Amino acid sequence: MTSEKQTLLGGESSTVYNHRTSTKKRSWLMIILESLNILLVGTLIFYVYTKDSTLADSTNGGVNSPSTLDPSSKKNVIFMVTDGMGPSSISLARSFKQFRDGLDIDNILRVDQHFIGSSRTRSSSSLVTDSAAGATAFSCGLKTYNGAIGVYPDKTPCGTILEALKLQGYYTGLVVTTRITDATPAAFSAHADYRFQEDLIAEQQLGDSPLGRVVDLIIGGGRCHFYPNSQGNGEGSNGCRADNRNLIEEAKADGWSYVGTRSEFDQLDGGKNVTFPLLGLIADTDVPYDIDRNPKEYPSLAEQAKVALTALSRATEDSDKGFFLLIEGSRIDHAGHHNDPAAQVREVLAFDDAFNEVLKFIDETDTDTIVISTSDHETGGLATARQIAPDYPDYLWYPEVLLNSSHSGEFLANKVYDFKVNNVDGDKYSSLDEFLTREIFENDLGIKDYTHEDIQQIKNAGVNKEALLYTLNNLVSVRSQTGWSTHGHSAVDVNIYGYTNSHALGNELFQSSPYSGLFGNHENIEIGRFMEKITGVNLDEITKKIKGIKHHPQVSEEEIEITSKKHTHEMIVENLE
Amino acid sequence: MTSEKQTLLGGESSTVYNHRTSTKKRSWLMIILESLNILLVGTLIFYVYTKDSTLADSTNGGVNSPSTLDPSSKKNVIFMVTDGMGPSSISLARSFKQFRDGLDIDNILRVDQHFIGSSRTRSSSSLVTDSAAGATAFSCGLKTYNGAIGVYPDKTPCGTILEALKLQGYYTGLVVTTRITDATPAAFSAHADYRFQEDLIAEQQLGDSPLGRVVDLIIGGGRCHFYPNSQGNGEGSNGCRADNRNLIEEAKADGWSYVGTRSEFDQLDGGKNVTFPLLGLIADTDVPYDIDRNPKEYPSLAEQAKVALTALSRATEDSDKGFFLLIEGSRIDHAGHHNDPAAQVREVLAFDDAFNEVLKFIDETDTDTIVISTSDHETGGLATARQIAPDYPDYLWYPEVLLNSSHSGEFLANKVYDFKVNNVDGDKYSSLDEFLTREIFENDLGIKDYTHEDIQQIKNAGVNKEALLYTLNNLVSVRSQTGWSTHGHSAVDVNIYGYTNSHALGNELFQSSPYSGLFGNHENIEIGRFMEKITGVNLDEITKKIKGIKHHPQVSEEEIEITSKKHTHEMIVENLE
Repeated sequence: MTSEKQTLLGGESSTVYNHRTSTKKRSWLMIILESLNILLVGTLIFYVYTKDSTLADSTNGGVNSPSTLDPSSKKNVIFMVTDGMGPSSISLARSFKQFRDGLDIDNILRVDQHFIGSSRTRSSSSLVTDSAAGATAFSCGLKTYNGAIGVYPDKTPCGTILEALKLQGYYTGLVVTTRITDATPAAFSAHADYRFQEDLIAEQQLGDSPLGRVVDLIIGGGRCHFYPNSQGNGEGSNGCRADNRNLIEEAKADGWSYVGTRSEFDQLDGGKNVTFPLLGLIADTDVPYDIDRNPKEYPSLAEQAKVALTALSRATEDSDKGFFLLIEGSRIDHAGHHNDPAAQVREVLAFDDAFNEVLKFIDETDTDTIVISTSDHETGGLATARQIAPDYPDYLWYPEVLLNSSHSGEFLANKVYDFKVNNVDGDKYSSLDEFLTREIFENDLGIKDYTHEDIQQIKNAGVNKEALLYTLNNLVSVRSQTGWSTHGHSAVDVNIYGYTNSHALGNELFQSSPYSGLFGNHENIEIGRFMEKITGVNLDEITKKIKGIKHHPQVSEEEIEITSKKHTHEMIVENLE
Repeated sequence: MTSEKQTLLGGESSTVYNHRTSTKKRSWLMIILESLNILLVGTLIFYVYTKDSTLADSTNGGVNSPSTLDPSSKKNVIFMVTDGMGPSSISLARSFKQFRDGLDIDNILRVDQHFIGSSRTRSSSSLVTDSAAGATAFSCGLKTYNGAIGVYPDKTPCGTILEALKLQGYYTGLVVTTRITDATPAAFSAHADYRFQEDLIAEQQLGDSPLGRVVDLIIGGGRCHFYPNSQGNGEGSNGCRADNRNLIEEAKADGWSYVGTRSEFDQLDGGKNVTFPLLGLIADTDVPYDIDRNPKEYPSLAEQAKVALTALSRATEDSDKGFFLLIEGSRIDHAGHHNDPAAQVREVLAFDDAFNEVLKFIDETDTDTIVISTSDHETGGLATARQIAPDYPDYLWYPEVLLNSSHSGEFLANKVYDFKVNNVDGDKYSSLDEFLTREIFENDLGIKDYTHEDIQQIKNAGVNKEALLYTLNNLVSVRSQTGWSTHGHSAVDVNIYGYTNSHALGNELFQSSPYSGLFGNHENIEIGRFMEKITGVNLDEITKKIKGIKHHPQVSEEEIEITSKKHTHEMIVENLE
């Protein structure tokens, strides 16, 4: 091996292992072998090492064929998003789980076991991205502005990986716990200049696109933008479309099967009884936080994921193409916006359960399958520490406070409001003080050491649900010594997790050079490009095909900024209505 | 390959790549190959794949010999610590550098290019560790209580990797920017029940140990605990020992060469002119923050590192043993404690420069060398976002504010104090208002939009240097929209970086199973165990040899808590004296 091959292989490598520039004649083969990263590789290395010269020759011939991956071969691509989950969210949830279940320090989350790198998250318009630009980085593989749903910075639509794979013959699915019209699922399945165009997004998701219908399976919340404003479906649902269309009836007429309740969801039989396309809208807006979720009313994210995996796997059983599935732990982000640590740790663990379902699926399937999981950004500026007095702080935080808390601040804000305004529980408690101390503090929050000042803070919030929400969550955050810096997003790098049952896909995944694999530190757009690469699709071709799609908002340029900000805020507190 | 081998290989794997449990008969060899993570592995995989059965047999025989690593072979181990650097510190510093230098999004830090995993940091006494327990996790490979310097939870001394390697014939070095008697270097080179025992730590570092002298090279700050209280060395240095010993004179008499000034440091000729053992104490307490550092007075961490690498490399040139070197970016932590983002980004970049020196060394040396770099914990609960008004926040942060700021809050607090108390700059400014606006805001902080309220805040801090420090840093943090949750530490996982020029060491490094390699998510003690493993030393044997070492403090049990807390606080504000 000489400098000749080093030239062939390009300049400075950014992999964690690098070659020597010394005079020692080490072959490239050895360098290749030096990156083996699992158990029991020693003997293999020893064996192959003895075949040095032969392999060096074959490596040389392989410069122009760097992978055994056949992009067109049958494969499943599962992309998971932990919306708003930063590094601190993981540390918090893991410590919480270890405390709750009495586990030792080596008992870590399922995602922890598949940690492979980190993602840099800035958008084209800010160092702090929003979920729309974050999701478009994944779906189109490009940087765009905050608020953009599947469009370039110049507001022309960009082809998405979901659209491209659908045109290749893949089945496609979206599984979320927030509105299906919200930014993350929207950026894969729709194109809109602004994320507030949820009515339009719903229409596109059902097939109003030059490409026709591109989504085969939908399970999530967000019936709202499928129903006319102020018109329910007879089961308590409320519509919020600006027009008078009933998209659910339209979808049914177009051949969609519809699931709107827990019992209808159960009839899917874990995914064995799905008629495609499936429109599963299991909540008006968001599925409740996992800490509040009544399993008789709402499935867990893991259950949703299992149905999708089973259904999509069966649908593609005899196909030469697999499926693309997006699964989002959507409300980790909401708990961050709410600065609610008790809700967030349960959201992270619910996601981890869904991740585990995916791992089980991958271990069981015969089809080459890869899962990539990451966050669009962190939310809340969460810190697993908080100084609560001017004195120099002790180094502590208290998971037991989060364990004692049995509901989210969102749930409890509504509950306090209902007592104050609608006299709910008025028969059980003779005064607001009694209700707050016995019911809210002692029963719901598990806080016994409440003070007069704590009670007064809740009283001061009056019937302002948002003020109630922040006050309640702050009580828990302070006591657990959990810190927050904002109700918005932050710019910290987020984790990437990955797993596959395919050697060719694993080989691609564990490359670390920029725009090559996903091992190490990468820009978020590389994740979109990676999915494009391993499936061999060309997103630019999709971009050409969707030029005619309707994507401009129906509000004036002047109104856009106001509408955007109002929408962002409203979506964060929508369950307080 | 059958289930027989799967049993041999143990149960569930926690690597990022896992085997199929399906009926497909995929060999373990393929699984091994699936973790190759660099460029151009495709051809190799194809080649070896064809040798399947032969290799499978050799793999089977290799169960009991999992690595080609010879622990006793000559190697250099470089361990780097970014004290107090969390994931947000990296994102902040990287964005700052990209902004400052006009770099594109793919231009990342040198550490980013070698990101391999993350470390969980809790101590035996708290979910939030301190630097002493954090460093002992690395040095002894075990969990202990906050404050412990190289001792078990029961306060018996534990053998450290530095001691063990010294006894093996390695040369050893410590390079830091804080006091050499501070927690991180102390935990490798001394044993004390509490970190406040810095006088004792200094004595041990010079050789007062059953093992004799174990450190060959020291470059850092902290002359203080080597000089008698209130006795200088004639060059402005102040001693702070409780006794009357002058350890520097004692060291010289014992054969240490001593370096105490920049010019003496320069005479080391980049490490080519070092007489061992070397005691380099280049500051009374801390080396100034890089943002404040006068290069004519103090070398950079990169310069310190280069001297150490060159000197240790030359000293071991003809030896069959290499060297162990600890390099710490000590004051990233201080900037976190101070909530000073302008100082912190420069500290991180100064560390990155030192890391780059290490990379260059590794690429140039013929000796098998590995660097592992990680943090003991995060400090400050830093968030790259901060809500500065009750209104829903915009998603933004402003690196330009940090760039405009040309000094640390520490430096400026002293400067404001000196104006107020000692009338320094009194000839240039006719009033405190003029001094604050022209000198501090406009000139030093680069803040033009200061308000009456801002000025009043500084006035309100009076001559309380700590209050001045926090007030000044808060002005910068708010304007840059940088968030902090505490002046203490937090519990977030911290990053691990790694690099080697050795295939055997790389093979060890990139294993991901618990207590195996350092790829993926690991407990901090695994890092200590990893260094033990690759060097083949036995720390338990060292533990037996140091039983007689003096390690109890000379204060009563009752005083310990008070002394500990006082010390911790004093060390954080020591440069304000």
